[in-house]
Amino acid sequence: MRFTHETLPQRVVFAPGAAADAVAAEVDALDGRRVMLVASEREAALADPIAAGLPVALRHEEVVMHVPVPVAERARQAAAEADVDVVVTVGGGSTTGLGKAVALTTGLPLVAVPTTYAGSEATDVWGLTEDGTKTTGVDRRVLPRSVVYDATLLTSLPAGMAVASGLNALAHCVDAMWGPRVDPIDQALAGEGIRGLAAGLPAVARGEDAGVEQTLYGAYLAAVSFASAGSGMHHKICHVLGGMFDLPHAQTHAVVLPHVLAFNAPHAPEAERRIAAAFDAPSAVAGLAALRRAVDAPVALRDHGMPEDGIAAAVPAVLAAIPADNPTPVTIENLTALLRAAWAGEEPA
Amino acid sequence: MRFTHETLPQRVVFAPGAAADAVAAEVDALDGRRVMLVASEREAALADPIAAGLPVALRHEEVVMHVPVPVAERARQAAAEADVDVVVTVGGGSTTGLGKAVALTTGLPLVAVPTTYAGSEATDVWGLTEDGTKTTGVDRRVLPRSVVYDATLLTSLPAGMAVASGLNALAHCVDAMWGPRVDPIDQALAGEGIRGLAAGLPAVARGEDAGVEQTLYGAYLAAVSFASAGSGMHHKICHVLGGMFDLPHAQTHAVVLPHVLAFNAPHAPEAERRIAAAFDAPSAVAGLAALRRAVDAPVALRDHGMPEDGIAAAVPAVLAAIPADNPTPVTIENLTALLRAAWAGEEPA
Repeated sequence: MRFTHETLPQRVVFAPGAAADAVAAEVDALDGRRVMLVASEREAALADPIAAGLPVALRHEEVVMHVPVPVAERARQAAAEADVDVVVTVGGGSTTGLGKAVALTTGLPLVAVPTTYAGSEATDVWGLTEDGTKTTGVDRRVLPRSVVYDATLLTSLPAGMAVASGLNALAHCVDAMWGPRVDPIDQALAGEGIRGLAAGLPAVARGEDAGVEQTLYGAYLAAVSFASAGSGMHHKICHVLGGMFDLPHAQTHAVVLPHVLAFNAPHAPEAERRIAAAFDAPSAVAGLAALRRAVDAPVALRDHGMPEDGIAAAVPAVLAAIPADNPTPVTIENLTALLRAAWAGEEPA
Repeated sequence: MRFTHETLPQRVVFAPGAAADAVAAEVDALDGRRVMLVASEREAALADPIAAGLPVALRHEEVVMHVPVPVAERARQAAAEADVDVVVTVGGGSTTGLGKAVALTTGLPLVAVPTTYAGSEATDVWGLTEDGTKTTGVDRRVLPRSVVYDATLLTSLPAGMAVASGLNALAHCVDAMWGPRVDPIDQALAGEGIRGLAAGLPAVARGEDAGVEQTLYGAYLAAVSFASAGSGMHHKICHVLGGMFDLPHAQTHAVVLPHVLAFNAPHAPEAERRIAAAFDAPSAVAGLAALRRAVDAPVALRDHGMPEDGIAAAVPAVLAAIPADNPTPVTIENLTALLRAAWAGEEPA
């Protein structure tokens, strides 16, 4: 038992149906007198009731995926001109990301109100893109001081998108179990995240609002545990495949996850035990399979744009990216078999 | 699901057999050039090898239980005179407590190296005594920036004392499950703490060093979850009984815990499920009973100095102290029955 675990300072407020009051309280606790409210036009209907309770000095709507540098620069300049003292974001990963970009250079405290299961709000990781290249970094200043989770803000997400996003969070939990920096505390939090996602996602898939709270709770813990443990085999595979074949992000994760779990579980007994317990299933693989059936998860990469000859093409890049201490040793042969099964939609081996 | 959970910033380093190197690395990361090393004379043998790797400007030995104000004042003055920039404590709760007292007024960063299972190192709670009165408070400055847990520093604790201290940590985990501010994250961490303590304590009771790592891990999570959730029924009872009859702290906790668990479990299904799962037992009560048998825990308060007429005398004070939202409603009758069973050493009802 030799590890270093770092806990990050953050207030996390679960306030179903009460975002406006909760955000006002958090801004007040930060002595916020001039708020920059970041929300895209698409998110305006969710942001308006929250804005109504705040001393908003600036409303900023220019939100762009992957936070291009010029977009970040304009937001920073607007913040300086309006002399704001707190940034509040209402939105998904791109909106939170823009808030982080402002916090990174200004040091302004950030309050994040997520409207998806993306999880960026629970990490101190920032990302910016310039000329098509993404730069990421870790900085304590971008960690939101407070996160306000209000499940009612997510009930308007279409069920299909919500399930894809929730399965993405599930992949964070599972892959955290053998991430390069994983420790038992990460594993405990990831297990608790799986518990929340498994409890919430079937209802979310049926379009029932009742599942959103648990899913949101699971997605928060997914982000915390994954940020601490780091990317394991699953995310390395998805990153390579997504980049090479321009595959849809969420579907790729949903298809690949059961194959990586079946691949690693025999050599990761502690992770296996924790995942099985979180699913309340006889085994980790069985638990994930049951949840996937309940949410009608996608099963084959060939249905989502991956060519068959992509399997052989991807193997070297994936091999190079997988962490050296992955539980099951990875070879050209077993990796090829895994990718073929994921491509064809076969049962995980 | 409506709660606020606050995470505190701390680096936690588990480094069995490697405290000296780990502490040197943490002090270096804090740019420490002039270290105040706090360790009592009794702890000198454990502190010496750690001191050898540090730029020690001041070695401070005056450590007194409950941190009397004059003792704290002398430590603060010594720190100022020696112009130190980091405080390192090597010791139990009183030593950590003195380091916190120095950090409270000076703002100096603190690195704690625990030699018991007390848990103070994982909280931002400070305590000082003056004229026999204890004052406690919460201040972010007293939270150690880093904690270095080295299991080999605890192997010289006598088995009886180690088990008592470990059972005290177990009481923190169990009572956190229904503490007044408890949330599901506290419950997940408390469950993981129980897991560690249940895995480690039987070996510790047999005097085997192999159990110390897991016990230390469990004690850390006990402190984190208990500090976040707050005192529940168990600690209120022990506090009242301890104060009225001058009972030994650890034994009181060990005797009372199974009675409170049996009392609350029927009306706390989520806590019950989590505790049972952590013990890997058919029920929470059965899991705790098995562990208590394995470590030969004390069973009756009358063996430890509580008079029989103390039962009736304690009831009103305990009733007034128990949180209003305790899972099972508390009455004069059921509380009297609980205290009588704990006094006589009967099976929990």
